[in-house]
Amino acid sequence: MANCLVAQSGGPTAVINATVAGLVKANQLNPYYDKVYGGLNGIEGILKEEFVDLTAMSDAENRILKQTPASALGSCRYKLKRDNREDFAKLFAILEKYNIETMFYTGGNDSMDTVAALSEYAEKNNISKHRFIGCPKTVDNDLMHTDHCPGYPSAAKFIANVALSTWLDVNVYTRQEVFILETMGRDAGWLAASACLSGIVDLLILPEVAFDKEVFLKELQKCIAEKNKCYVVVSEGAKYADGTYLAAGEAKNDGFGHAVLGGAGAALKEIILNSGISKRCKVQDLSTAQRCFSVMQSLVDVEESYRLGMSAHMRSVDGKTSGVMVGMVRNNDTEYDINYVTIPAHEVANYVKAFPSEWILPNYHGVSDEALAYMSPLIKGSPVVIYENGIPAFVKPYYMNK
Amino acid sequence: MANCLVAQSGGPTAVINATVAGLVKANQLNPYYDKVYGGLNGIEGILKEEFVDLTAMSDAENRILKQTPASALGSCRYKLKRDNREDFAKLFAILEKYNIETMFYTGGNDSMDTVAALSEYAEKNNISKHRFIGCPKTVDNDLMHTDHCPGYPSAAKFIANVALSTWLDVNVYTRQEVFILETMGRDAGWLAASACLSGIVDLLILPEVAFDKEVFLKELQKCIAEKNKCYVVVSEGAKYADGTYLAAGEAKNDGFGHAVLGGAGAALKEIILNSGISKRCKVQDLSTAQRCFSVMQSLVDVEESYRLGMSAHMRSVDGKTSGVMVGMVRNNDTEYDINYVTIPAHEVANYVKAFPSEWILPNYHGVSDEALAYMSPLIKGSPVVIYENGIPAFVKPYYMNK
Repeated sequence: MANCLVAQSGGPTAVINATVAGLVKANQLNPYYDKVYGGLNGIEGILKEEFVDLTAMSDAENRILKQTPASALGSCRYKLKRDNREDFAKLFAILEKYNIETMFYTGGNDSMDTVAALSEYAEKNNISKHRFIGCPKTVDNDLMHTDHCPGYPSAAKFIANVALSTWLDVNVYTRQEVFILETMGRDAGWLAASACLSGIVDLLILPEVAFDKEVFLKELQKCIAEKNKCYVVVSEGAKYADGTYLAAGEAKNDGFGHAVLGGAGAALKEIILNSGISKRCKVQDLSTAQRCFSVMQSLVDVEESYRLGMSAHMRSVDGKTSGVMVGMVRNNDTEYDINYVTIPAHEVANYVKAFPSEWILPNYHGVSDEALAYMSPLIKGSPVVIYENGIPAFVKPYYMNK
Repeated sequence: MANCLVAQSGGPTAVINATVAGLVKANQLNPYYDKVYGGLNGIEGILKEEFVDLTAMSDAENRILKQTPASALGSCRYKLKRDNREDFAKLFAILEKYNIETMFYTGGNDSMDTVAALSEYAEKNNISKHRFIGCPKTVDNDLMHTDHCPGYPSAAKFIANVALSTWLDVNVYTRQEVFILETMGRDAGWLAASACLSGIVDLLILPEVAFDKEVFLKELQKCIAEKNKCYVVVSEGAKYADGTYLAAGEAKNDGFGHAVLGGAGAALKEIILNSGISKRCKVQDLSTAQRCFSVMQSLVDVEESYRLGMSAHMRSVDGKTSGVMVGMVRNNDTEYDINYVTIPAHEVANYVKAFPSEWILPNYHGVSDEALAYMSPLIKGSPVVIYENGIPAFVKPYYMNK
């Protein structure tokens, strides 16, 4: 009998481990593979033969793994380049050595490129023994051909909740004040837009719309005139018409070689204070917490991520599926539901799905009802968290035992 | 029959409204007061006679109020000065006009000073008709004579959870990295120390210990040598031996009149990068979210805050209690439990309870087991959150209807 290998790549999410948990559970329900290896630190560790055996994981550990954030197998930013034949030869030799029939790789568009490259290599070299299947994960929600990406709903839920709480906080004093919430999302506005689920966002700055300082300040002034407050959400990837990031704008190098502090939120604060429209402006940069705060997992997200891992395993037992990513298609006829499908990995690799321009309201006024209808079902429900002494139980990362 | 008045002051917490909910419920169980008025924006709004009537609040609203963060009645930073006789006369005239027998005031040590000042004024002027009772609330946990302050446990729970999640996140890559978590707490280290409940903090910088850059960097180097990572928690109030705040140190004015960006965490990052010990350093400033993130309420905290409001009402019906704060004494004989007591407000006013020096381990190595035993019971349990469309239900702040 042959084995399989699962590894993780790219930035952490709150539910990435649920995909691994689902895959391990699927192999317990149908032991198609003799062993389920976990590869540590993605391609980086696989090339060093750093494996753990996940085959016989207890159900208790499986449940706790589902609620453990970040990547329990460790991650990497290592990109397998198509012209690096040495890496390819080495990797296939390792797959041969450990008798690995299928390699499952969770990640974003770089990881899907790895899946595409490996399956292309196998095809060109007439290797049918090793197969490659991708599982999407990214809080940025920017992968093509899948309704959404596991990890996004939980991050969106956290962001919307922080937005609501901090909006209630900033309103308690009678004084004039602007509050800026900065989110991740790189060049796609999905995460920033999710703050609108709270229903309290006054102005929203997405990377998809060139930042026009004059228009923004005019809208800010109107809002302050009406409410004495303004709640602004800005994406880290917000940029001017010429492509310059807001973060690199007014707050750039101070001439003394000091590190540049802060990102888009800090830069926007400087713009607002310099404009004189408001004397008080606070910034909350959600930073790392937004992508890994497992206690705020969306139940929809964690279950979908788990099932996606199961689906990947179940599709692999046909003995031929390779070079695909398992994706999700929304079945919205009656109520929200998801069908799992396979998508050629090369159609996902290296593309970015932007937040749809038709969902963006003019003058930074947030997003349309269609956008809210898309996001709203994703954040529903909360899993029952297993606590130990007031802290959620978590699996000690496998890479820490190496 | 006479009425009572409840108002809120100072910075928001995740459970401050639970005290109001408890007080309103107590008056429904024993309608000693004809009306329970809510004063909007603390003393500031009371002086403008901005009141709402909370007497007949439905049980559904009461339950949602318990989970609504920040101050539903609005807050203020207005300090009633003892020599401002005009304010005193005006306030007592308003209490007279609205037939208010007891005024309940929730807040920190400034608010307890207000309670003390008002009851002293009444005593000096032989006014027995109006009485004043304080209810503690502050995430900083720095009030004297009470085991802890409502609001602190929920903030501590949030901080410990973010610490655990971000530690798992920062460890996924094999690269060298320092992560800095910045917490609130002003000049007391309670909030920063609570991160240690996660069990993952490598180095902890409290305001109670003068910051010695050389010692800290030596410890950082040792940690990096051992783990290739270091997880650092720093309080916003951390300072050098000469009293200068870390936040005002290396990151101060850049000479061009630009606003200074960032606080203690950003300053520490600069120190670390300048030292050359690590080339990568990330900062997560928990900022506003840590004091108002209601979805992470500790069950212990929200129940204690609610009961404290009930206790304040129940003690007031003796017709004479005044000039006190309702506090909590820990009854630790068998298992964690709390007795509610009254404490003269002037013994709380204007003092700050520091984090005990005997609980601080040397060389920034965190806190003792005694400290963990003190904090641990406070963060236990999670209330069942009432959601609407994936977002927790909340009471529209009363001050928004004025």
